[in-house]
Amino acid sequence: MRALATHPAARGLNDDCAVLELGSETLVLTHDAMAEGVHFLRGQDPADVAWKLVATNLSDLAAKGAEPVGVLLGYQLGTNDDRFVAGLAEVLACYNVPLLGGDTIAASSAQVLGLTALGRATYQPAPSRSGAQAGDELWITGPVGAAMLGLEALRNGHGESLAYRRPAALLAEGRALAPLVSAMMDVSDGLLLDASRMAAASDVTIDIDRSAVPIATPEDRRDEALRWGEDYQLLFTAPPGSTFLVPVHRIGQVHTRGPAALLLDGKVPTGKLGYQHGS
Amino acid sequence: MRALATHPAARGLNDDCAVLELGSETLVLTHDAMAEGVHFLRGQDPADVAWKLVATNLSDLAAKGAEPVGVLLGYQLGTNDDRFVAGLAEVLACYNVPLLGGDTIAASSAQVLGLTALGRATYQPAPSRSGAQAGDELWITGPVGAAMLGLEALRNGHGESLAYRRPAALLAEGRALAPLVSAMMDVSDGLLLDASRMAAASDVTIDIDRSAVPIATPEDRRDEALRWGEDYQLLFTAPPGSTFLVPVHRIGQVHTRGPAALLLDGKVPTGKLGYQHGS
Repeated sequence: MRALATHPAARGLNDDCAVLELGSETLVLTHDAMAEGVHFLRGQDPADVAWKLVATNLSDLAAKGAEPVGVLLGYQLGTNDDRFVAGLAEVLACYNVPLLGGDTIAASSAQVLGLTALGRATYQPAPSRSGAQAGDELWITGPVGAAMLGLEALRNGHGESLAYRRPAALLAEGRALAPLVSAMMDVSDGLLLDASRMAAASDVTIDIDRSAVPIATPEDRRDEALRWGEDYQLLFTAPPGSTFLVPVHRIGQVHTRGPAALLLDGKVPTGKLGYQHGS
Repeated sequence: MRALATHPAARGLNDDCAVLELGSETLVLTHDAMAEGVHFLRGQDPADVAWKLVATNLSDLAAKGAEPVGVLLGYQLGTNDDRFVAGLAEVLACYNVPLLGGDTIAASSAQVLGLTALGRATYQPAPSRSGAQAGDELWITGPVGAAMLGLEALRNGHGESLAYRRPAALLAEGRALAPLVSAMMDVSDGLLLDASRMAAASDVTIDIDRSAVPIATPEDRRDEALRWGEDYQLLFTAPPGSTFLVPVHRIGQVHTRGPAALLLDGKVPTGKLGYQHGS
């Protein structure tokens, strides 16, 4: 995020969602773009690309406890548009979301796709990443590291790659959690990085209990799993003693803001925290 | 428009706008994508690219008589992001539209940009291209061909290129006209092509009076001007005897559907009608 994030005209460009009061409804809007060779592999099945493009945007709605209203697609024609449309139909049917419109363009360069998802908040105020309070506990809906293994399987040509190819958008979980959380976001860029963003936005320190984090990998890859993204679990904070009707895992504590926004077992974590966009 | 337009999952993908009842409001949504080397020139000032990306989407809202609520941007980092942001700030300020959010990606290939514009209808039902009735008259808000001359000026390095670089979105005109029209759309791909689409959508025949069409070009380029797009004038139909509070030009008649959807001075026009996407 170079020039764009710092200019007033581009403020908020990379927040997860826009939340907008409109008449009697609270709208939630999100837009993600994906490029061939960056966000998906060259030669990857376009049906999976379509799935991921839709699911990752719906995941942003999930983190707001929003119910999808529809999506708009910006589609650059590729080498197998039929497969893309097949995957699009599958993911839209799976989540019962209509395609409202969009645009199709032809260009000779690597494929770039964009998707806008529109939802309505089911609970107000819609959770944001900035509401974590000292004393809260930190929770996650499920394991991290599955997408990492899935990408390796896809690259190696054997093993289970579904978690990378067809991530789930936790819409039902998000709706169930929204009334109960103080802050919520989806983990798209890595648990440590996204938790540090939540801490910074909330002006608190988040201390993650390393061994409490559920991981989909062998134990010796725990540190990687905590830094890998694309699992789209929901990360949230809630007052101590909260109970939830969906399976969740307590993985840390929220403290008043100290010198560092993020701690891992009480210490500042070393190395890269996750995947940084545009860097 | 190859596979995508024909598949049920992609139905409506290239309609101008989605219109959606949500609570007490009627939302109007549109998404357009633009690629370097296709929709804008390689090396073109990114500030102008930003302007056009926003203005063309706002023009779709204008054709619905909608008032903009905000936009979401899918931005692929380019060679001069500061200039893009400067142009973005200018066009958003000009139309008093907020940037609600979006996404920024880095990719090595030619730049592809997407924009979603969200508006609220000011008049219901919002005009569509399918409402033209036999007996109506056909009108346009202003001359065609200005963008064609502007593109030539830009390519030649002299002359006035503003009409191509910074088209206007006729939001005020659209709002004023919406309660009075039977059908309305913006002319983005060429007057003849867009009029033929309106005729097809309305199941009527539209006969354009060639000499009545206001053009920005010398008379000897009239036929080109009628086929060139990107002027973003509003094209609409209304019952005979209608009067309007904005400057408009009567350019044709709507008849019951004959063998051809579009006539020019009573005859089927020859050659290409305009710019076809994805072909």
